[in-house]
Amino acid sequence: MGLLIEDDNDGGELLIPPANFSMVEDGVYRSGFPQLENFGFLSTLNLKSIIYLCPEPYPEENLKSLQSNNIKLFQFGIQGKTDPPTPMPKDTVLSALRVLVDVRNHPILIHCKQGKHRTGCLVGCLRKVQNWCLSSVLEEYQNCAGLKWRQRDLAFIEEFDVHGLRQCLYSIIYQYNGYGLKRRKLLYQEENLVVQEQHKPQATKGW
Amino acid sequence: MGLLIEDDNDGGELLIPPANFSMVEDGVYRSGFPQLENFGFLSTLNLKSIIYLCPEPYPEENLKSLQSNNIKLFQFGIQGKTDPPTPMPKDTVLSALRVLVDVRNHPILIHCKQGKHRTGCLVGCLRKVQNWCLSSVLEEYQNCAGLKWRQRDLAFIEEFDVHGLRQCLYSIIYQYNGYGLKRRKLLYQEENLVVQEQHKPQATKGW
Repeated sequence: MGLLIEDDNDGGELLIPPANFSMVEDGVYRSGFPQLENFGFLSTLNLKSIIYLCPEPYPEENLKSLQSNNIKLFQFGIQGKTDPPTPMPKDTVLSALRVLVDVRNHPILIHCKQGKHRTGCLVGCLRKVQNWCLSSVLEEYQNCAGLKWRQRDLAFIEEFDVHGLRQCLYSIIYQYNGYGLKRRKLLYQEENLVVQEQHKPQATKGW
Repeated sequence: MGLLIEDDNDGGELLIPPANFSMVEDGVYRSGFPQLENFGFLSTLNLKSIIYLCPEPYPEENLKSLQSNNIKLFQFGIQGKTDPPTPMPKDTVLSALRVLVDVRNHPILIHCKQGKHRTGCLVGCLRKVQNWCLSSVLEEYQNCAGLKWRQRDLAFIEEFDVHGLRQCLYSIIYQYNGYGLKRRKLLYQEENLVVQEQHKPQATKGW
């Protein structure tokens, strides 16, 4: 029997999620920068990886916590607020997205500093891969960014092209389900970190 | 291999989550009132139940969709905005909370009209059961309510006493783990829908 509380939590210890924490999908979480007081809460998530979206080095005590919990750090250095604004780098977001959609990295936490703009853009792109309608994607971005939402982030999410990545993901699924040769050819034409282990041809199962 | 997209979604059909949709926990979702155009998206959640927090009857087409998908409806009629404001009914929220923490009802969607106030209060109470610190509980409520957040909802969440429910849940877990007689007595003293099937005494396993 499962319950929504932890067996070993005796009700005495308060759990302190990082600022702006929320759940995105099964095994995918987002938040602002985790502080020391959040480590107890984070340990309840059994994280396998973290996607960190800032260029600044990861603090020593956070690194130690990752090491002792065997959590892998994927860092993608995206500039925060600058004057004039730096455009969100499409290729870097795409690389982060590839790590994010690979369930071998789950449970995974995405964070930047506030968990609003860089994190919001990456989650927005994930929603597009998932085929969410744009207005829902933007609503989610705005709910998490609050009053600090940025028009240029919305534009970035709207313009971000997930077609290549999505097609590639479908190719993997079709290959896995023995969908036949046509889709598999598509797979071989595309480069994608996620598919490295699926590149070997497999026998179709009867159809 | 699992991926974050649906196998049978060919990329052509847009998924339209209900307004203010988000994931609360594994198998727990929240949103505003689902409209006809959201049914396709909702079917991807494989819902087992819905907690509906308004007194108004459920619309016929929503009921039909529930029936055809074998989804159970738990309705708890809580008044929306009134003048003067009606206080949030503690007992009703507690009853809804009991349904919510019972994983036999998962995956479950909580909704009211906007998914902000009544839903926000119930989710806030769940977070208290989960031992989240109050500031994180209130931050989550505010992120989902946006500019329409209400001071009296925050006060309700803060004052809501989850001690009895939490103790009862722990009792079940301890009983399940063969924790001994002391906790089990506590269990028998409390009435709780969630524990109906666990009321039979069980042999302890060695300790």
